[in-house]
Amino acid sequence: MEETFVPFRGIKNDLQGRLLCYKQDWIGGFRAGFRILAPTTYIFFASAIPVISFGEQLEINTEGVLTAVQTLASTAVCGIIHSIIGGQPLLILGVAEPTVIMYTFMFNFAKERPDLGRDLFLAWTGWVCVWTALLLFLLSVLGACSIINRFTRVAGELFGLLISMLFMQQAIKGLVEEFRIPKRENPNLTAFIPSWRFANGMFALVLSFGLLLTALRSRKARSWRYGTGWLRSFIADYGVPLMVLVWTAVSYIPAGSVPKGIPRRLLSPNPWSPGAYENWTVIKDMPNVPILYIIGAFIPATMIAVLYYFDHSVASQLAQQKEFNLRKPASFHYDLLLLGFLTLMCGLIGIPPSNGVIPQSPMHTKSLATLKHQLLRNRLVLTARQSMRKNSSLGQLYGNMQEAYQQMQTPLIYQESSARGLKELKDSTIQLASSMGNIDAPVDETVFDVEKEIDDLLPVEVKEQRLSNLLQATMVGGCVAAMPLLKMIPTSVLWGYFAFMAIESLPGNQFWERILLLFTAPSRRYKVLEDYHATFVETVPFKMIAMFTIFQTIYLLICFGITWIPLAGVLFPLMIMLLVPVRQYLLPKFFKGAHLQDLDAAEYEEAPALPFNLATETELGARASFAEDGEILDELVTRSRGEIRRTYSPKITSSTGTPAKDPKILQSPHFSEKAYSPRISELRGEKSPRSIGRGPSSPRTGETKPSKLGTSPSASASTPK
Amino acid sequence: MEETFVPFRGIKNDLQGRLLCYKQDWIGGFRAGFRILAPTTYIFFASAIPVISFGEQLEINTEGVLTAVQTLASTAVCGIIHSIIGGQPLLILGVAEPTVIMYTFMFNFAKERPDLGRDLFLAWTGWVCVWTALLLFLLSVLGACSIINRFTRVAGELFGLLISMLFMQQAIKGLVEEFRIPKRENPNLTAFIPSWRFANGMFALVLSFGLLLTALRSRKARSWRYGTGWLRSFIADYGVPLMVLVWTAVSYIPAGSVPKGIPRRLLSPNPWSPGAYENWTVIKDMPNVPILYIIGAFIPATMIAVLYYFDHSVASQLAQQKEFNLRKPASFHYDLLLLGFLTLMCGLIGIPPSNGVIPQSPMHTKSLATLKHQLLRNRLVLTARQSMRKNSSLGQLYGNMQEAYQQMQTPLIYQESSARGLKELKDSTIQLASSMGNIDAPVDETVFDVEKEIDDLLPVEVKEQRLSNLLQATMVGGCVAAMPLLKMIPTSVLWGYFAFMAIESLPGNQFWERILLLFTAPSRRYKVLEDYHATFVETVPFKMIAMFTIFQTIYLLICFGITWIPLAGVLFPLMIMLLVPVRQYLLPKFFKGAHLQDLDAAEYEEAPALPFNLATETELGARASFAEDGEILDELVTRSRGEIRRTYSPKITSSTGTPAKDPKILQSPHFSEKAYSPRISELRGEKSPRSIGRGPSSPRTGETKPSKLGTSPSASASTPK
Repeated sequence: MEETFVPFRGIKNDLQGRLLCYKQDWIGGFRAGFRILAPTTYIFFASAIPVISFGEQLEINTEGVLTAVQTLASTAVCGIIHSIIGGQPLLILGVAEPTVIMYTFMFNFAKERPDLGRDLFLAWTGWVCVWTALLLFLLSVLGACSIINRFTRVAGELFGLLISMLFMQQAIKGLVEEFRIPKRENPNLTAFIPSWRFANGMFALVLSFGLLLTALRSRKARSWRYGTGWLRSFIADYGVPLMVLVWTAVSYIPAGSVPKGIPRRLLSPNPWSPGAYENWTVIKDMPNVPILYIIGAFIPATMIAVLYYFDHSVASQLAQQKEFNLRKPASFHYDLLLLGFLTLMCGLIGIPPSNGVIPQSPMHTKSLATLKHQLLRNRLVLTARQSMRKNSSLGQLYGNMQEAYQQMQTPLIYQESSARGLKELKDSTIQLASSMGNIDAPVDETVFDVEKEIDDLLPVEVKEQRLSNLLQATMVGGCVAAMPLLKMIPTSVLWGYFAFMAIESLPGNQFWERILLLFTAPSRRYKVLEDYHATFVETVPFKMIAMFTIFQTIYLLICFGITWIPLAGVLFPLMIMLLVPVRQYLLPKFFKGAHLQDLDAAEYEEAPALPFNLATETELGARASFAEDGEILDELVTRSRGEIRRTYSPKITSSTGTPAKDPKILQSPHFSEKAYSPRISELRGEKSPRSIGRGPSSPRTGETKPSKLGTSPSASASTPK
Repeated sequence: MEETFVPFRGIKNDLQGRLLCYKQDWIGGFRAGFRILAPTTYIFFASAIPVISFGEQLEINTEGVLTAVQTLASTAVCGIIHSIIGGQPLLILGVAEPTVIMYTFMFNFAKERPDLGRDLFLAWTGWVCVWTALLLFLLSVLGACSIINRFTRVAGELFGLLISMLFMQQAIKGLVEEFRIPKRENPNLTAFIPSWRFANGMFALVLSFGLLLTALRSRKARSWRYGTGWLRSFIADYGVPLMVLVWTAVSYIPAGSVPKGIPRRLLSPNPWSPGAYENWTVIKDMPNVPILYIIGAFIPATMIAVLYYFDHSVASQLAQQKEFNLRKPASFHYDLLLLGFLTLMCGLIGIPPSNGVIPQSPMHTKSLATLKHQLLRNRLVLTARQSMRKNSSLGQLYGNMQEAYQQMQTPLIYQESSARGLKELKDSTIQLASSMGNIDAPVDETVFDVEKEIDDLLPVEVKEQRLSNLLQATMVGGCVAAMPLLKMIPTSVLWGYFAFMAIESLPGNQFWERILLLFTAPSRRYKVLEDYHATFVETVPFKMIAMFTIFQTIYLLICFGITWIPLAGVLFPLMIMLLVPVRQYLLPKFFKGAHLQDLDAAEYEEAPALPFNLATETELGARASFAEDGEILDELVTRSRGEIRRTYSPKITSSTGTPAKDPKILQSPHFSEKAYSPRISELRGEKSPRSIGRGPSSPRTGETKPSKLGTSPSASASTPK
């Protein structure tokens, strides 16, 4: 992204880019058919459960002024609007923890002022939202999001890990609370005598760990050995919501022998009670707020604006990581503008505003990558089988598959060349086939293992569309009506779910992977490479990796510590924004530039950009997972939705002492994997026919030398033609 | 084993065979140093915990006449004697569930006869033991164990799985009981009011699942990615006892807020109470038993004798499976004779007798295989590093390693050729090295990855010695004194441990693996091959495997059902013995001979034996894990002590339509893995320099054709030279 601060230019660019694919955003969603329900349900749960829990927190903190009804309403309304007219439809909106903290602070402030009090609290927050919206408009119009590229991996991943820590903290706190008497309850109930409290706590442990372990397992169902493919896919797609149901059902098993209130369940308000909607008319109270407080509202508004600017942008950025190979453009400026409008609207109807949330947004993208993979796979398998039935030759077979692939692609003008990926593939495979002498012979399944081959062909791509976001937001809205049902969920299942979300968001976070690397036995470090394709393990000395990671960990712990400070806590995003100058000016004094590049590529530090050639890019992207074993890819893509491999990065990522001349070669992960770590590719066995056809694998002595890159078949295949 | 029924011949042969290695049995144990403590502790826990639990069961059933003190004493005394003068020191003795059932039956019989009653119960069981001992002597002298070879895999594995089911049943029953009021307790205690009972049950769930999950995890520690090798080994070796300690400690965390008795703990008797030892003088009461009852004692005695004959032999057989590559001879006849003496002794001192137990006996062998692997590995790594420091060439290096390997081997006369395995290895590796042109150059760690190469070299071998058995039996004896400490263990941890034992004994059981295979998706069946090296998956049609497995499963369920019948239950071993004629006469009518052979090799059905050449055998054994990735071997050997791969079988195992001419090739698992499933070896990558040196891997088209075997480097390497 160019750093342009010309007013409105960013918004205009964003709008132009997204309008081009707007129609396809919808068509693509509907074309996916019923399968869109898998990512939708997955994200719906990930979105609704924390929002309900935050609502409960807010209910306690604001003495019932705001409840889960309002947080759900805000999440639903903002989500629906964003999914329809938002820029980046992958971004998930919701009421987040920082908002809850801010509202708690504002409530405590308001209720102690006699001329505001509990009654005018919502009217005052209305003014805060007005100011926040104005500031967001300003930031958006002036192109503040242009500096997003300064939020390097370091900042984004640190923020992601911090959110994980907060989720995990909430899970632990919640579980500990299960052993205690809740504050707002009558302590004389049977359920609160010591024996039942202890029983409740133990039951909570069983339920939450049960949910956590089974949910984590079910996410890996696709790589299970047992059960039919259909069942495994179903469990992988719907396992988590299913487990919430299962463990809720389990919580009713001892119902006959325990008093009411064991285990504790959600305490949501009745959405049909008379007072539940008095917030909607808050706008008529807004003029009653004393002028001094209207002006004073500017102070919390700045804090919220900074928070939202950062939070929204980082959530959007994490949902669009380069690893995902997205094809549609980003839309930071316009989305920030829209967020301003949404905040204004929420303020005026007296509900807490929503913003882009972590980890739900990246979870959403990952689940759509799985979807896209499945759709492409099914189509290509079908095509290949049909061709075989017609006794096609290998050449015809690939021709048909290429056609099918092309049909599945997003028909956008700037992507007309996107199908070249498969064409390249076809060429090299045919070359192999002819060398094996069977180019014109009819193929059958013994020669061409359909499902396996196709898994080898498929790149990591994301089904970018608006439907899943719209549906999940609508379902969140439906929760308000389904409150009586939601009340059946035990709170302990909720805590288990929080822990699940924290753990699910870890894989794929390079910061987390580096922390793990510190504890990995030296002899097994190569396994990290194998799993995460982290080039830095090979290019940066371990001592440097360790130093960098320890620095980052200390920084993380400081941020985490700040969240514990009663009021200042809300400023923790400032601490993370401080990382930007630290990264830009301080870190280069301690680390070699090349190492920093590999650990945390910053665009502003890079070599002059190459001519931006989308066609080449797409080829690289499409070829990314070539030599992969299909099963491995399948597992990687879906295992825990965090382990999408890095398929390409359009900028130069490497550095130290590599003799390759063409920087584009370096862009290909295929390159980096094969050349930097032949050990791994050998371990995996390189089943790809391509590597067999091109020549014998390099002898043992040459394995660790990167100097052979130029002649490696995969590296040469990556050079643009 | 030849079927000889000449009186005493079996015993004589056994004694001759074992006396030859008796001295080495001790030397080998002491040479292992402190590492012998790992298998010892592991087996001690596996042995002591069920015995304590059976003791508690017996205490309830016999109204306190027999307690855990007596079961522990029997296990300890019999174990010590067997470990010193027993034939097969791998066999673990203990008081088993069937014994408990028999004693319960006899107690119920005795207490209702006015002329026996509770007082003469032990004296009467003394007579039962006398008769049992006589029957066992008879069986042993007449060579009844010669028909052990008719107990095929089918019978042994069915029995093993049945025991697993019984253990699991006990775990579940125990957990359910935690929610109820125990029979022998005062129901008015605080701990038994509904709320505390519920709390106790939930706490029990937490503790038992906690133990089960952490124990299962800790067994896999060797293949963890994190932590130093030392720590990982320590956790893998001592993780299970450690977890018992940890979860016992956890059970004390809420001690301040729960009444006494939550969670429930072991209720063992005080071994220093006056009445605890009155059983020792039971011999003086024996003449007081009416003559009619003395004669009548013959009836339960036959049942016990049949039971022990079967149980003891099968436990011994499972501890000596061919997969373990044992080098010392079996001793079925002599061990049965000794069991007779032990039973007599136990009867006369009024304690329930012990016999060979499952799954502890095979667990013992498996843990010793790990030990042997570690010892050999450490020695060879040391030797290799030393050689490198002296700038040796690859030739010298292997020379030194071969010498070290030879030194580590059991110096028995009939094993003088055992070191040939490594020599063969050296030859082929040097051949490779010379083809790479560096035969005389000094080697360093970049060329020769010491730890990895050595893992590749090592065959699966078992440290056969007597020390671990002696030590564990002594420790069981020590439990009597440590009763006050044992009382701290919560019963729920015990149930978790039962479940752990049931699960630990599953892997390696081909019957279990076939059951899993039925539920495996067709496309993933090859993974079973990869993990278990089950040749039958390739040679027997899936329908046949399924039919055979379903038949076996139904048979298992019938056996399991029988154990539920109050009295007849004790006869379930007869059901399993019935499998012998079923297998020999009935099954061949439904299954092809070749298929039956592959699923369940019976020695009496085999082709005329090849000249029995120990040298060749050893070579094959030693070469078994050649091309394996060391890491994988490491995991296989230690993962759950059940997954020792099948390294060789001295009989022909295969059959249908394989074109290979030399039957010896077929014996090598290396052959079967490489040739039958090149897909798998390719997946794993065949990092071994041997396969690189010999030529390029076969082209894709040849992969699925076993006809290329003759030219495959691994297959040709397997032919004896």
